[in-house]
Amino acid sequence: MSDLSTDLMEKAAALDAADELAKRRELFALEDSAVYLDGNSLGALPRHVPARMADVITREWGELRIRSWDESGWWSAPERIGDRIAPLVGAAPGQIVVGDSTSVNVFKALVAAVRMAGDGRDEIVVDATTFPTDGYIAESAARLTGCRLVPVTPAELPAALGPRTAAALVNHVDFRTGRLHDLPALTAAVHEAGALAVWDLCHSAGALPVGLDAHGVDLAVGCTYKYLNGGPGSPAYVYVAERHQGRFDSPLPGWNSHADPFAMAAGFTAADGAARGRVGTPDILSMLALEAALDVWDGVSVEAVRAKSLALTDFFLECVEAYAPEGRVTSLTPRAHDARGSQVALSCAEAPAVMEALIARGVVGDLRRPDVLRFGFTPLYVGFADTERAARVLADVLAEVPASTLG
Amino acid sequence: MSDLSTDLMEKAAALDAADELAKRRELFALEDSAVYLDGNSLGALPRHVPARMADVITREWGELRIRSWDESGWWSAPERIGDRIAPLVGAAPGQIVVGDSTSVNVFKALVAAVRMAGDGRDEIVVDATTFPTDGYIAESAARLTGCRLVPVTPAELPAALGPRTAAALVNHVDFRTGRLHDLPALTAAVHEAGALAVWDLCHSAGALPVGLDAHGVDLAVGCTYKYLNGGPGSPAYVYVAERHQGRFDSPLPGWNSHADPFAMAAGFTAADGAARGRVGTPDILSMLALEAALDVWDGVSVEAVRAKSLALTDFFLECVEAYAPEGRVTSLTPRAHDARGSQVALSCAEAPAVMEALIARGVVGDLRRPDVLRFGFTPLYVGFADTERAARVLADVLAEVPASTLG
Repeated sequence: MSDLSTDLMEKAAALDAADELAKRRELFALEDSAVYLDGNSLGALPRHVPARMADVITREWGELRIRSWDESGWWSAPERIGDRIAPLVGAAPGQIVVGDSTSVNVFKALVAAVRMAGDGRDEIVVDATTFPTDGYIAESAARLTGCRLVPVTPAELPAALGPRTAAALVNHVDFRTGRLHDLPALTAAVHEAGALAVWDLCHSAGALPVGLDAHGVDLAVGCTYKYLNGGPGSPAYVYVAERHQGRFDSPLPGWNSHADPFAMAAGFTAADGAARGRVGTPDILSMLALEAALDVWDGVSVEAVRAKSLALTDFFLECVEAYAPEGRVTSLTPRAHDARGSQVALSCAEAPAVMEALIARGVVGDLRRPDVLRFGFTPLYVGFADTERAARVLADVLAEVPASTLG
Repeated sequence: MSDLSTDLMEKAAALDAADELAKRRELFALEDSAVYLDGNSLGALPRHVPARMADVITREWGELRIRSWDESGWWSAPERIGDRIAPLVGAAPGQIVVGDSTSVNVFKALVAAVRMAGDGRDEIVVDATTFPTDGYIAESAARLTGCRLVPVTPAELPAALGPRTAAALVNHVDFRTGRLHDLPALTAAVHEAGALAVWDLCHSAGALPVGLDAHGVDLAVGCTYKYLNGGPGSPAYVYVAERHQGRFDSPLPGWNSHADPFAMAAGFTAADGAARGRVGTPDILSMLALEAALDVWDGVSVEAVRAKSLALTDFFLECVEAYAPEGRVTSLTPRAHDARGSQVALSCAEAPAVMEALIARGVVGDLRRPDVLRFGFTPLYVGFADTERAARVLADVLAEVPASTLG
């Protein structure tokens, strides 16, 4: 072992010893020796979820059956779980409802935003660097509402806003580079143009403070299977700021968003509050796994999570710089803390082969084609020794995978 | 015990003894003494589902984590499970994809149908007696595509069709009355008008033969938590007839319906085949519970299910007629087999109090406000003795709940 790695391993041990969140790792099923740096794609399993789900399936479904819609609180789960997510994204209760996929929630939010924006506003400005589903859905929302789609980078966004802008859809953290966008400033710019700001929180909720209420965000969506550890494909959520709820006119007015769903009336009357964002019957198994998974947040401050996240990604960048062969990887993730989410993305010409070898050696990140190695840092269960080891194994792999001859 | 009930109990015993599906009941968790006649709202738990879900949660999510998207077949689950449902509704493989709620699938199907119908067709005809969510969503689809909504009863439907009809949305079985509509004849009438037929199979799939391919249905949707026993809020499905798939232009083009989802390309190119009906990341826990639940159909013919269903509802009507005090309940469900689904709906002025008392005595149906008692007959686990007992308890309850003084 080189002096360099001895130093960095000692530093990691010291950082782990001082980490107030270190004990949280025990709440997750992480007995294997892998370093799991893919929590930005699928969060790890909280250890108590299997027992809770056994009860949901065997007793609530199997024994109580239909009675569970009332007696086990199934019917109210979308709002109740929304209120559990609310403090993690800086929202007061009553503004978030859980259900459907992120894509479906982007559609609800954008069409509703266009309808709220009012006459003469027929442009949807969309973050062109966003996760593609947001762009595809924005295009569909624009087509169905007679709007023009204006795709721009977040940096170009303020200049693209104007009197015709109905809404702007931006991803809080770029899924590819890990760049954090300036939510307060961009929201203010959108408001100055008289439009509505719609934020996608998939890569920020559970990793850093969002401050939806504090910054006056209008609408937001997010998934729950990344930093919120809700399980594969667990339901997404939509945030509708309280001041907009009375005018939130959903393009998916299913019976669950009716003011009196069990009247089963022919005419639609929208429910009050967050329930207006509901659509059809909620997928209870996935939803209750998410609810249980949220227990790991009890007593955790998002500020502490953010501090550790930045320390982890700082340390990873330091270790990569120290260990990796010169010129083989380049960070796409900003150094500046105020522009960094909770992942590090490294551009690497041999990324597919490198990620395959990393996974084979127990360092699990993921690949974004063609050349991006992504490493997600989930502060609740990733430690500094993990981080040092990941960088060290990456350097070993890079030394073994030949550099491509193409530039 | 009266001679009458002795006779009917003997008849029930003989029918149960001759029932080729009777053994299927053992596949379900139905150890309690209740008679469960609410499988048309939430199907009972297949006994093997908890063990399968423990493995999905503990091993596939907890141990394999992100690798399960490939290694555990999560990614392909929507099409794979669609192909399991296909034979139950008379569809060849490759035309059904599972995901999202019924409401969301109605939206996809109707907007896509309007787009396929072509110029000059700007009316959506909708079954006004349908489950209300279909009507609400049809109204939204009409509003977003510039169509006029034409709500009619299924009987009035043929006369409402014309050169401006783009699509007609009909529920195969009325959720309230249990009336079965004539899918072959109505589909033919819709086609004669040059429009597309969209069927909602929530109350028919798993209870009777549907024959989607044989009758040339264009698009269909359905839930999976009733007669398919997929669990509370398990994902719905959409059927797109193969001949239409190339032109199926979804209003919810999420990244899962992209031809190359992991290219994460800025521009949208639709996938081929049923995958075009996908949207966002599928809710894997709910979806895999459904997949496991479908095992109870192995070796079952839908024709045998239909024969037993009709025998059960015939026998229930016979018992109710024999036992119930004169004039207290009236069947809303047609006597004619070709107009009956798999439930019996009884109109009763005291329905709320009666259903409460029935449930307290272990006969679980449900109430559709203000005055409908619904009893669903799931041939895989309801027997004839159950049926006789349900009618007998109903008669007891009616004798105790005073008839309302209002007419």
